[in-house]
Amino acid sequence: MSRPVALDAMGGDRAPRETVAGALLAASVGVPVVLVGDEAVLRAELASQGGDLPIVHAPEVIDMHAHATEVRRRRQASINVAMRLVSDGEAEAAVSMGHSGATMAAALFTLGRVRSIERPAILAEIPSEAASGRVHLIDAGANADVRPQHLVQFARMGAAYAERMSAVTRPRVGLLSIGEEPTKGNQLVLEAYPLLAAAGLEFVGNVEGRDVLADTADVIVTEGFTGNVVLKLAEGEARILFGWIKEALTSSLKARLGALLVKDALKGLAARMDPAEYGAMPLLGVRGPAFIGHGASDRRAVQNALLRAHKMANSGLMDALAALE
Amino acid sequence: MSRPVALDAMGGDRAPRETVAGALLAASVGVPVVLVGDEAVLRAELASQGGDLPIVHAPEVIDMHAHATEVRRRRQASINVAMRLVSDGEAEAAVSMGHSGATMAAALFTLGRVRSIERPAILAEIPSEAASGRVHLIDAGANADVRPQHLVQFARMGAAYAERMSAVTRPRVGLLSIGEEPTKGNQLVLEAYPLLAAAGLEFVGNVEGRDVLADTADVIVTEGFTGNVVLKLAEGEARILFGWIKEALTSSLKARLGALLVKDALKGLAARMDPAEYGAMPLLGVRGPAFIGHGASDRRAVQNALLRAHKMANSGLMDALAALE
Repeated sequence: MSRPVALDAMGGDRAPRETVAGALLAASVGVPVVLVGDEAVLRAELASQGGDLPIVHAPEVIDMHAHATEVRRRRQASINVAMRLVSDGEAEAAVSMGHSGATMAAALFTLGRVRSIERPAILAEIPSEAASGRVHLIDAGANADVRPQHLVQFARMGAAYAERMSAVTRPRVGLLSIGEEPTKGNQLVLEAYPLLAAAGLEFVGNVEGRDVLADTADVIVTEGFTGNVVLKLAEGEARILFGWIKEALTSSLKARLGALLVKDALKGLAARMDPAEYGAMPLLGVRGPAFIGHGASDRRAVQNALLRAHKMANSGLMDALAALE
Repeated sequence: MSRPVALDAMGGDRAPRETVAGALLAASVGVPVVLVGDEAVLRAELASQGGDLPIVHAPEVIDMHAHATEVRRRRQASINVAMRLVSDGEAEAAVSMGHSGATMAAALFTLGRVRSIERPAILAEIPSEAASGRVHLIDAGANADVRPQHLVQFARMGAAYAERMSAVTRPRVGLLSIGEEPTKGNQLVLEAYPLLAAAGLEFVGNVEGRDVLADTADVIVTEGFTGNVVLKLAEGEARILFGWIKEALTSSLKARLGALLVKDALKGLAARMDPAEYGAMPLLGVRGPAFIGHGASDRRAVQNALLRAHKMANSGLMDALAALE
């Protein structure tokens, strides 16, 4: 029996109902899960949903308004207990839909950094026209200000992830910039370009905003400020465009009739664009698989996050990251 | 008779055919236009399209591969001649679909800066859920690295533009960041926040990527690196999503039948998302209306750019920008 994925069952706006429901869904398809949180609360939630899962008691919760510095003090908070299960070898991965800053802090503090990585970074998968169906964006929000060599470390981690998690051979790595020529960009990008070109990666040079979702690169490297803006804009735009499409499809009787016929086809596309499809994002560069999800995650997002955490723990990626130079 | 808008008729991948065609369209709806470029070429193009417009001869062209530093040397290049018509008071505005860097350089060199603006910036209008139907993003690409006070200058220019060009009263100004709290962001944003809060604008605080197209702000302020990525991603994602929708609508017989009925409704939406709708972007902070368009602009984009340039020249915006503190 493999070790379970530890789920911070108290984290997220819709915990514990959706976290527990998502855990039961993941368990039903063979992912071992342990719930971390207030035992009485979780026991009651499991009973009301008619399911059963192991629980590790954690009496404290770090709420969404807490300052990340509280994390260190609150040793018995569910996110800290979940991370400790990973560092103690009792869980293969940790997942939280709670306070993102707290999850990052807990992962850094409890798991520690991989030797060659100075700045752990968040990797986001975004649906794209690339052959694997997605582009891997790193850093999606962990580090707002970085130095050029950090972008090289992000690139190495992103490429390792794309290879092992998305089965992309020799992933194409692009540097997010504002022009294709190596002379275009801000100071950070101008300095990072030659470092990336010499890093032994499949470096395809600068990639512009219009190319992010095109079949231009498998991994796109940027600092966590632009990366977070890109991720949230990509998600937000899809949501708003689908809203406008819905409006357009009810704008006339003819359109409403047609809408009945195209509904199924568009539903598949909307599902593909739904962030819940990916569930949560890994923080790469810490010594253990740690996933950070949307606070608003529903059971489907929780289930997908647990599936990906389980996959990552068994993908060989952690060894590959530990071996990076 | 008002002064004409000067069009760099040689600039852009599809010049002179589309530039001349767009100029004739704009003239047909009452915008006075003067074509700037090689007289023989433009005369022949006008003849072949069966139209007539005044021409100011400019024997040189700055092509798409030129370095921006060439601009200063090539005094007789069409973009320089167009800008000189503005600075000499013979044209009310200048528009180019050519080399963006060259157009910016020509505008800065020939028109000069507005007194209180240290760094002219590009303003982009992007379709959004705001009441005016658009969000005004500044800087969309002129300055890759800036200081906090430059963001305040961008905010003042963006607000003045939204008021006079989009009829927004007390435009809401948001600072693009990666969290809503004033403590979230990179160093630049953290330092700019208090300056913006004290600037006497309708400052709504930080705005995230997911809010860019939502009804959150009328003006979004950022440096030209993130701004350019945002603009191009917003355009690129719309294009790719519409491509996927088209695929989905041909994925089955049922969907194809429905597509016939919803086609018109979706076409209106696609047209709204088309960058050609806005035509070109103004460089704000130089002493004269100067517009920079996509190299790939077609006649519709050229026409819309000329309409907006004419509108801006007669909007009182230039006086408002000159009066900024």
